[in-house]
Amino acid sequence: MEENRQVYLDYSATTPVKREVLDAMLPYFTENFGNPSSLYTVGQKSKDAIRTARDQVAGLIGAQPSEIFFTSSGTEADNWAVIGAAMWKRGKGKHVITSAIEHHALLHSGDHLEKEGFDVTYLPVDAQGFVRPDDLEKAIRDDTTVVSIMFANNEIGTIQPIAELCRIARAHGVLFHTDAVQALGNVPIDVNGLGVDMLSMSGHKIYGPKGVGALYVRKGVNLPAYMQGGAQESGKRAGTENLTGIVGFGKAAELSGQNLEKHIAGLRGLRDYLLEKIRAEISDIRVNGSLESRLPGNLNVTFKYIEGEAILLLLDMAGIAVSTGSACSSASLTPSHVLDAIGVPVEEIHGSIRFTVGDFTTKEDIDYTVEALKTAVSKLRGISSLSRDSGF
Amino acid sequence: MEENRQVYLDYSATTPVKREVLDAMLPYFTENFGNPSSLYTVGQKSKDAIRTARDQVAGLIGAQPSEIFFTSSGTEADNWAVIGAAMWKRGKGKHVITSAIEHHALLHSGDHLEKEGFDVTYLPVDAQGFVRPDDLEKAIRDDTTVVSIMFANNEIGTIQPIAELCRIARAHGVLFHTDAVQALGNVPIDVNGLGVDMLSMSGHKIYGPKGVGALYVRKGVNLPAYMQGGAQESGKRAGTENLTGIVGFGKAAELSGQNLEKHIAGLRGLRDYLLEKIRAEISDIRVNGSLESRLPGNLNVTFKYIEGEAILLLLDMAGIAVSTGSACSSASLTPSHVLDAIGVPVEEIHGSIRFTVGDFTTKEDIDYTVEALKTAVSKLRGISSLSRDSGF
Repeated sequence: MEENRQVYLDYSATTPVKREVLDAMLPYFTENFGNPSSLYTVGQKSKDAIRTARDQVAGLIGAQPSEIFFTSSGTEADNWAVIGAAMWKRGKGKHVITSAIEHHALLHSGDHLEKEGFDVTYLPVDAQGFVRPDDLEKAIRDDTTVVSIMFANNEIGTIQPIAELCRIARAHGVLFHTDAVQALGNVPIDVNGLGVDMLSMSGHKIYGPKGVGALYVRKGVNLPAYMQGGAQESGKRAGTENLTGIVGFGKAAELSGQNLEKHIAGLRGLRDYLLEKIRAEISDIRVNGSLESRLPGNLNVTFKYIEGEAILLLLDMAGIAVSTGSACSSASLTPSHVLDAIGVPVEEIHGSIRFTVGDFTTKEDIDYTVEALKTAVSKLRGISSLSRDSGF
Repeated sequence: MEENRQVYLDYSATTPVKREVLDAMLPYFTENFGNPSSLYTVGQKSKDAIRTARDQVAGLIGAQPSEIFFTSSGTEADNWAVIGAAMWKRGKGKHVITSAIEHHALLHSGDHLEKEGFDVTYLPVDAQGFVRPDDLEKAIRDDTTVVSIMFANNEIGTIQPIAELCRIARAHGVLFHTDAVQALGNVPIDVNGLGVDMLSMSGHKIYGPKGVGALYVRKGVNLPAYMQGGAQESGKRAGTENLTGIVGFGKAAELSGQNLEKHIAGLRGLRDYLLEKIRAEISDIRVNGSLESRLPGNLNVTFKYIEGEAILLLLDMAGIAVSTGSACSSASLTPSHVLDAIGVPVEEIHGSIRFTVGDFTTKEDIDYTVEALKTAVSKLRGISSLSRDSGF
């Protein structure tokens, strides 16, 4: 095995900032650093840079620039959309629908709403991870105001039938939000074709910087302001703009749109190669989630009889970064709510690893990873059978 | 006059990122880019970097690292502190006290609380811009839960007697928050000496990046979580951390602490030189706010009979950046609420300019500025007297 090879296979957790993105950002730290709200030239240059970035992000999803509101993260966009829309419509009703496999940004927003007296329905998913349109139809009540279903799942990559789900919600006059943090840059998105009212995005999942996200809000959807203060973001989200972050997100969105088909085909090729090699080299595995409608870079595999965390640590020692679930919950010991929702038995959930390939992944990375994985699994299964034999 | 000279005298609006700060940030964009929540090495390096930054920010204000919560801005810190604390204590009462000269992040948080059924008292200030401790004492009621008084004002630089105000609040069992966004790095701050419960900070006012701030929350003050989602920031503020922003803020805080006395003395010298020259060269001016307890870099001057915005534009044409008020409200046409609160007549408010010097300001910058200012004021007063003579 090669020494010191570093392989990053956790692009769903975060991505490195691309060189072109960083280059676009750099002047705004030290030279064009003006406050975008300032009236003089150096301030107006910053304002122009934000305008460009807004155009770039809007362009990636077919929105109007005025429908894009920059936030500090995808999580903030999710909080704002769901809690904000629920508060806005509370005169009509206090029922919100989401799914059982959402990111914690949604699930915990749901908890928050429940504490504030709202009723939240968590739709189940099928064994492949799909929300059934019929379930949504049946769950909508007279007092339902918001439906939020994630575009693509962060753990198993399932891409939901968003257009269809959205049509159902809108037919009942219910607002539809989707968390597209994982889908952005990995699936073609057209907000008008889909019909969504709100859509959450994040910069650092598409080779942009951390600390910046955006919420698409369809014209006419009058969300309450998220933060109180200055008149930034059309008075909806106060606070001096994250100028460099926004510039970087804009550039990343632009690059993403230019290479989307190629990027998707490339990731799918690598992901399929990874799966093929794992299947060839390692026995007793299980692929979690649909292989049909799935993020191109995502693979989620259960290695039976062993712990995913142990695999993660052994791979890390070989310089390979993979995940046992979403990064945001990786420090917690509770088993993945996503794998649980698609019916993976608890002992198998604990043996699951998420691999996500990205633009810098090579076939050599994958060859190296599967070699290391084979060694790790075999070692751990040896210990595991030993433990079982000795009664531990 | 020199051609193409660029003079930035709006350091209160925002500061450029210092080279050392940017250098500290750079590796975290492209190389050490791991998600701090990830368990493998590249994630843990990010986590370590955030830990270092938390130590650095805590060090600047004498806090424990566990009392520092990173946010996306000073505005977010203000919103979280005041709305969060008011919501936390709403069982005890629904009365909040602040001052008439706060930043809009506070004033509009007050509006928000009023809409939610809270009662908000806005304390007046004296002609120098100080909140009178007696006024605070009298305003506290049985149902008062939070007092928020800004440390130093963003327009006129007044530094409030925070320790004294805080003592009064705490003697009544009322939480005390201060918006120290302008004070940080310009005034020595020791949270324990002051006794404050919460204190807001921002990175981009101390030569750090935009898009990052922090809230100091004294141990035992159990603010509700600000954002729902992952377990970041001890479960209090979800969302993938703004890794590079936090690293930069930490480095800026460290630099700030190392050079604080020198920085303060330097700014005060330049500010006094600017004032002296303006007084020598231009008639009919008025200095707004106290010259005693004031931010070292701040000067706020009324140039009678003319419009501040016209001065700003003429100076901008000469490459000089100054402000007519805070950056966050500069696009609005309403006269400064701060100058109004200290009793500046409306026509004089419109003729006011804020100059704020910073670490990159030179005496030559000031000489150049006063020259340009003299020309601008004389030109505008000529037009102004013409307009008056011709009846416009």
